[in-house]
Amino acid sequence: MLIDRLNWRYATKKMNPDKAVPEDTLERILEAVRLAPTSSGLQQFEVIVVTNADVREKIRAIAWDQAQVVDASHLIVFAAWDNYTPERINHMFDLVNDERGFKNEGWEAYRQQLLASYPQRDAQTNFEHAARQAYVGLGIALTAAAFEEVDATPMEGFDPDALDAILDLRARGLRSVVMMPVGYRAEEGDWLVNLKKVRRPVADFVSRVD
Amino acid sequence: MLIDRLNWRYATKKMNPDKAVPEDTLERILEAVRLAPTSSGLQQFEVIVVTNADVREKIRAIAWDQAQVVDASHLIVFAAWDNYTPERINHMFDLVNDERGFKNEGWEAYRQQLLASYPQRDAQTNFEHAARQAYVGLGIALTAAAFEEVDATPMEGFDPDALDAILDLRARGLRSVVMMPVGYRAEEGDWLVNLKKVRRPVADFVSRVD
Repeated sequence: MLIDRLNWRYATKKMNPDKAVPEDTLERILEAVRLAPTSSGLQQFEVIVVTNADVREKIRAIAWDQAQVVDASHLIVFAAWDNYTPERINHMFDLVNDERGFKNEGWEAYRQQLLASYPQRDAQTNFEHAARQAYVGLGIALTAAAFEEVDATPMEGFDPDALDAILDLRARGLRSVVMMPVGYRAEEGDWLVNLKKVRRPVADFVSRVD
Repeated sequence: MLIDRLNWRYATKKMNPDKAVPEDTLERILEAVRLAPTSSGLQQFEVIVVTNADVREKIRAIAWDQAQVVDASHLIVFAAWDNYTPERINHMFDLVNDERGFKNEGWEAYRQQLLASYPQRDAQTNFEHAARQAYVGLGIALTAAAFEEVDATPMEGFDPDALDAILDLRARGLRSVVMMPVGYRAEEGDWLVNLKKVRRPVADFVSRVD
């Protein structure tokens, strides 16, 4: 069943601009992303949901003029932490303690281990690590959208620095990494919709060490 | 329903070493990963499924002694391309043409665009880009496992260079990026199983530009 949904989905090239994703459906997709596991549980990324038409026109202009940016129902932007800081690490460990109602010695030792290593690394290394976690979120978002029969287009083709400026992400310590417009495929005009999905055969993708 | 499965899952700390994931279940999880969308459709990663006990003991030794490496039913390793080469790009574009039975002008222009840019970039930049795609696969793998009620543990805590050597990945132009043991949680002895799953509240994770 999940396989059927993944076979159904494709990188939609033409969205129907007149059909909106219902709010409860969108919220289920976002909730799946919020539940994504991340390294050390830090949730080192956020999502920004853009519907504003003027802002989306600006984004389209720095995204190879891809029409889905404006035609989709919602544009979901994944933005990762630009760096690891003691504040960010402590915030998450404190939240875990608060929610679980107790402090655990092993967990506190792990906090100290992260505090003694991550903030000392260079910002680019930390950002790349955070960006990978955002892609876990993207994988789950794509699956969740397909599960809801919502079309989605994973999209790296944009100028991340320009997108950061449009959404003022740097001021929030974030950097854009990938976008995902969601909506419904147009009835006509999508060159990709009827083309076969192509993947390498299993033998060229999976190997076994038995 | 997908949300329920994502709430059910957790980073399993103690696997039952006596319970194997049935082959058809494993194959559905791997098929979901094979269907993962990747940048330009290149599928710039592979998965290696390790069951061999001796090899898993060697991996455990370079993975913080984490017992799931040997106790899980199968250890799935995600390995990304170490670089983009013309051969790799052409192979995928040729496969697409073969499978679809025709050449498309726009698609061929896109091939030339990638050939003129990716192989010229430094190997580390290309590897980091490929590694991000492997994390899309990880996100889908985690979701697919949860959907099958199979436990899984996303795992970055290992020495990737040592793992590359154990599995001889560099000779295949691959570099390990993340592992995911799959199996079934042990009845007892998992410190994490009964602790609340903690995520930032929606308001701290999702923002809107309406």
